[in-house]
Amino acid sequence: MEIERKFTIKELPDLSNYEYKKLTQAYLNTDPVIRIRREDEKYILTYKGKGLLAREEHNLPLNAESFEHLLPKADGLVISKTRYLIPYEKYTIELDIFEGDLVPLIMAEVEFESEDEAHAFVPPSWFDKDVTQDKRYHNSNLSKGITPF
Amino acid sequence: MEIERKFTIKELPDLSNYEYKKLTQAYLNTDPVIRIRREDEKYILTYKGKGLLAREEHNLPLNAESFEHLLPKADGLVISKTRYLIPYEKYTIELDIFEGDLVPLIMAEVEFESEDEAHAFVPPSWFDKDVTQDKRYHNSNLSKGITPF
Repeated sequence: MEIERKFTIKELPDLSNYEYKKLTQAYLNTDPVIRIRREDEKYILTYKGKGLLAREEHNLPLNAESFEHLLPKADGLVISKTRYLIPYEKYTIELDIFEGDLVPLIMAEVEFESEDEAHAFVPPSWFDKDVTQDKRYHNSNLSKGITPF
Repeated sequence: MEIERKFTIKELPDLSNYEYKKLTQAYLNTDPVIRIRREDEKYILTYKGKGLLAREEHNLPLNAESFEHLLPKADGLVISKTRYLIPYEKYTIELDIFEGDLVPLIMAEVEFESEDEAHAFVPPSWFDKDVTQDKRYHNSNLSKGITPF
């Protein structure tokens, strides 16, 4: 089970000291989500069940060959983004800066151990709206090219 | 982890009293195996890692819409077969009678709790060859249309 909240961003913090990864991902299916992702040199197949705050999630290893084989089968846009990992209290903020068709979208996600913890989370001042309940911000929906901004 | 042995068949037992399911399955990828399957009115996404006797396996729920959406993305043949469930000692023999392009193939699979149990299994007299180690009999390879018979 993945428990996370998603936010839009008011202003960017200084990112020069944070770790980041290059992500490329695309969707074979939206409901349930079947996603392929390249994360630097790692390849992953992800299945996500229903849900907004909490969702069943399985991450299974792929390799470069299978990623390349599956990519042409994907629907809609291939999403590219840089994900910064920003420590905040006991959490890690994942800040996604989208590229290509999805510029100027920037979003933050925070993952939690429990729903109680998720509800209790107080976001930093540079976060804007909580869009956890807004399906338009799911990457699987963003890949359809209908952007909420 | 799925631990199973596969066999070809010498002669068919009388099947009139056994339960059966209608299976339709196809492959989005072969290594790792990413399979979609319809099993009567149930839809499943299966991921299988490497291995012959023992393989990592994940079965995740799909629905009719996602199955229909993913089917055109599959490689090669769509495999249709009738699977009979035949009780044998403490096991269930899954006897697959293939249809369409894969006629006259008939195969049996038996699943085990451990590798020791798998090795100790004494097949019934109507089984023919043990093809567990022969990748050509993997359904993912059969779907490529190159049949070992």
